[in-house]
Amino acid sequence: MSHLQREIEEQPDVIARLLSEQSEQAQTIARAIREANPAYICIAARGTSDNAARYAQYLFGIKAKKVVALATPSIHTLYQTAPDLSRALVIGISQSGQSEDIRQVLTDAKAQGSLTISLTNKPESPLAQQADYHFDLMAGEEVSVAATKSYTAQLTAIAMIGAHLVGDADMHTALATLPAAARDTIAAAGDTAQWIERYRYTDRLAVIGRGYNYCTAFEISLKIKELCYISADGWSEADFRHGPIAIVQPGFPVFVVAPRGATSEHAIDLLALLAKRKAESLVITNDDIPEGLARRVLKIPASLPEWLTPITAVIPGQIAAMHLAAARDLPLDKPRGLSKVTNTQ
Amino acid sequence: MSHLQREIEEQPDVIARLLSEQSEQAQTIARAIREANPAYICIAARGTSDNAARYAQYLFGIKAKKVVALATPSIHTLYQTAPDLSRALVIGISQSGQSEDIRQVLTDAKAQGSLTISLTNKPESPLAQQADYHFDLMAGEEVSVAATKSYTAQLTAIAMIGAHLVGDADMHTALATLPAAARDTIAAAGDTAQWIERYRYTDRLAVIGRGYNYCTAFEISLKIKELCYISADGWSEADFRHGPIAIVQPGFPVFVVAPRGATSEHAIDLLALLAKRKAESLVITNDDIPEGLARRVLKIPASLPEWLTPITAVIPGQIAAMHLAAARDLPLDKPRGLSKVTNTQ
Repeated sequence: MSHLQREIEEQPDVIARLLSEQSEQAQTIARAIREANPAYICIAARGTSDNAARYAQYLFGIKAKKVVALATPSIHTLYQTAPDLSRALVIGISQSGQSEDIRQVLTDAKAQGSLTISLTNKPESPLAQQADYHFDLMAGEEVSVAATKSYTAQLTAIAMIGAHLVGDADMHTALATLPAAARDTIAAAGDTAQWIERYRYTDRLAVIGRGYNYCTAFEISLKIKELCYISADGWSEADFRHGPIAIVQPGFPVFVVAPRGATSEHAIDLLALLAKRKAESLVITNDDIPEGLARRVLKIPASLPEWLTPITAVIPGQIAAMHLAAARDLPLDKPRGLSKVTNTQ
Repeated sequence: MSHLQREIEEQPDVIARLLSEQSEQAQTIARAIREANPAYICIAARGTSDNAARYAQYLFGIKAKKVVALATPSIHTLYQTAPDLSRALVIGISQSGQSEDIRQVLTDAKAQGSLTISLTNKPESPLAQQADYHFDLMAGEEVSVAATKSYTAQLTAIAMIGAHLVGDADMHTALATLPAAARDTIAAAGDTAQWIERYRYTDRLAVIGRGYNYCTAFEISLKIKELCYISADGWSEADFRHGPIAIVQPGFPVFVVAPRGATSEHAIDLLALLAKRKAESLVITNDDIPEGLARRVLKIPASLPEWLTPITAVIPGQIAAMHLAAARDLPLDKPRGLSKVTNTQ
């Protein structure tokens, strides 16, 4: 078994461990945020961690009413200056905790007196040591170069901090069902290796999501690019339909992340447009999709509220990317051009 | 002549008109921003206008030390809530000024007492009427569905407001040379129709930029997608090299936006990596590119400081997208699937 497959399958346990062992730290961090009362949140991250930051934009925006800005680390490193972060909460997210540019954003923020928090999988890392508060993702070593369990751990950490920030009992109840939902999602994807073969020779596709699952579209598209060397574009449903949809010809494969919730009406509407263009629509959902709108429906459990679906909806995408890479005879654990530590300056 | 070509060629005049007729309004807006002293800036925009917002992230971040968040309009429309924008300056950017979701962000911000500004090409539009201050882009009617002159007008407006916000005489001096630089850029691209034929049959490519020209990579990639139906990915140089570079095989075309400045060392480094993978690198630059690292160098004038290069560097990309669409026998003014007004809910 590849490290990649093992790590994908570890996700329910990683999530369960976080929920049981890090609840207190999530509470401590939420309290510090409430006390600081920042005008907004700024998150520094790259790659997969940047997609976790996109999840935070919607979760903190909708539930905690905080605007989340994504930091521009190059301003700190290449242009060697720092914007005014003094009224922000600054969060650094990094699997390895070794990204030099993410650390620089936190260093500058701290010098300005901002509250700083880091989320890493390495408590001894420079980023973890640097921040006022550290949230340990406890995902265990991630050997495969393509990040999977560290991503869902990051999302879970954000959801836990969000639930404590809002102080909503229903959110905590829903969080507790997450490990089982992740387990069911993996089980439901059991036949992926067979049907994915149909896509062996495509060299492009698109992945669409919106709202809470905007991050899911980006993360699945990133996994497909990294593992399968396919030009897989990630898009917001809203942006995609007003222009970039022009790329869709008959047979063009499109993953549409469309769980039940605020975005589903728009997703169904997009699926109808895609059907007219004779696209191949692969729909990740816990909803009923009208006849004829999907080539294949990838099921996620119906039990979760929309705000938690990104933590399950990414999993069929991870599994699809893995099996598609295998069908293309590509290495699963060490794809070309990928390095484990993103050390950008 | 297509409307698209005429509008691309109008850009020097549009920029000159803005500089001469809108300087006072830029100054008024800058004064209002200084008085409000917002904790950060939040920009609501979609598509091409979103790429203008990316320019503002770097320009306001580096020169005026203000963090710029990109708004998440779906939070306001689909999730029907509003994050706390009370300590923000909120800017809406829209060519048509008719985007319902952008207007909703400004409505919510205004209700919370934030300072609001709109940048549109239509002073009579709902968005223009709504904001505390309106900046008229004066680009004239844009008939071609793919936006060109309205984009460079948006960038120029942001640069003008930035220069007044910083109050730097050198910035104003540099701004004054912009129309001539845009004219020279168009002249230097005179042979594009010939050499672009080489790429008639590619159905994918990548466009890379960083820092100030992160926006340029995204905007060129968007034009190529919309006009040529090619899977053209836009990337930050930093993100691209740590994973997505896996998609690059021999002959894979990559546009690299690499003007002289803080990012050039990294761009040259990426070009060396791409050369090893035998990519086809097309470099947009005013710098000297080492022998063997570029299939073709697309020149922009050396006269502009780095912060203004996005307004010229996008032009060779617009022209390349136009001629590539023509080489593929595609319609220039009404590409499939594209609508002029982005009316998202």
